[in-house]
Amino acid sequence: MRTARVVYKGAIQAAYPHTEDEIRLASGQIVNEQDVEWLPPVEPRTVFTLGLNYADHAAELSFAAPTEPLVFLKGKNTFIGHNGETRRASDVTFMHYECELAVVIGKSGKKIKKEDAYDYVAGYTVANDYALRDYLENYYRPNLRVKNRDTCTPIGPWFVSKDEVKDPMNLSLKTYINGEVKQEGTTGDMVFGIPELIENISSYMTLNEGDLILTGTPKGSVDTKVGDVVVTEVEGVGRLVNTIVGDDQFNR
Amino acid sequence: MRTARVVYKGAIQAAYPHTEDEIRLASGQIVNEQDVEWLPPVEPRTVFTLGLNYADHAAELSFAAPTEPLVFLKGKNTFIGHNGETRRASDVTFMHYECELAVVIGKSGKKIKKEDAYDYVAGYTVANDYALRDYLENYYRPNLRVKNRDTCTPIGPWFVSKDEVKDPMNLSLKTYINGEVKQEGTTGDMVFGIPELIENISSYMTLNEGDLILTGTPKGSVDTKVGDVVVTEVEGVGRLVNTIVGDDQFNR
Repeated sequence: MRTARVVYKGAIQAAYPHTEDEIRLASGQIVNEQDVEWLPPVEPRTVFTLGLNYADHAAELSFAAPTEPLVFLKGKNTFIGHNGETRRASDVTFMHYECELAVVIGKSGKKIKKEDAYDYVAGYTVANDYALRDYLENYYRPNLRVKNRDTCTPIGPWFVSKDEVKDPMNLSLKTYINGEVKQEGTTGDMVFGIPELIENISSYMTLNEGDLILTGTPKGSVDTKVGDVVVTEVEGVGRLVNTIVGDDQFNR
Repeated sequence: MRTARVVYKGAIQAAYPHTEDEIRLASGQIVNEQDVEWLPPVEPRTVFTLGLNYADHAAELSFAAPTEPLVFLKGKNTFIGHNGETRRASDVTFMHYECELAVVIGKSGKKIKKEDAYDYVAGYTVANDYALRDYLENYYRPNLRVKNRDTCTPIGPWFVSKDEVKDPMNLSLKTYINGEVKQEGTTGDMVFGIPELIENISSYMTLNEGDLILTGTPKGSVDTKVGDVVVTEVEGVGRLVNTIVGDDQFNR
């Protein structure tokens, strides 16, 4: 099952895939996917984000791969949906996209064993976890200025239930800028896989239904500029489109 | 104005001060404060927490005081209310209380100037931001295991509107363990005061109505043990009571 949340004529509705360009609203109407405002497909609750969870990406930032998950949280202000606009603040030099598989937790649990981890997964979506590299001071500091700016975490378009994703640890990840492939990887290269992340986080705190885990990005993250159309794609999960806008166009 | 949120006979209600031991429910009933379950006085939205925001506390942990705010976020699982029980996990060696003034944001804003900061404040409450010191690896790493365990951030009892707090930058902070004063300080010793914190955070992201800022703790943070009754008190804001329980008594 694939579901989205969209705003159409001022009202929030569930939506479902129809054709490549069209979606079906909960009301039954078929509309062009450009004629709705896409929201994050699940309401972000507690959102966990992984730093340096692909060894090749850690290496390109000149950091050693972590020996245990580097996890931090994201605030609500940072999330937008598919086809959204992300502000590139005029005072930053480097703003990198990051294509990521996002895991949606479907059942609350503590001290979950990795063998049981997928019992707690509802499904998946795609995230683009932009980073403002100017402020990435060290291994331990993906701080709020780097990772929590308004509009800097597009997610979507679809929530995809787990039965539709045969092997989440073997999916290709791709980022396109203005139609050109810039980043390629596979979820198989995660340092800590989905079962290990669920086991790790739930070992010290409750993972709740509706929580999200953004599982990190492979190497190939480069700078973006105003006007770029950035597509982050996870095989079988979705193709998330996003446009970079400047301060002057930013009216949120 | 002082308000709380409590559960009485299964229903969530607003509550107001009455006598020292009694509170008045929104329904009009007067009940003993021990006969309700206290919730956090405001529903936690995005919660910002300051690391090392009192120079004397940074010094006791052998860190230099930060040159800009060290801010991190908290997840919902960690919050409980007044008279609640906080679990001391059996696998940790050091669990320190931290008495803190919490600022409740009342109006959303970006790029707020420090001169205007209090226009964005709705009021205050008290927090006890327990830290599991075992995992405090370095200056940059108040990580989730240190700062985001279930039940490890009691807040309350009251939301106190800002008109009742004349000078929030000149309030005494005290922590008592089993009746004995263990920590004493004043909000005047913050490295970054409330106006500076609001200016700083809102310079790179939106501060939203309902967000909380936990402003840090002064020196004097020491270990706690199972059975301790810990009271964190902020002058004119409130007296937050909390009990430490062990894994065996922990049935949440």
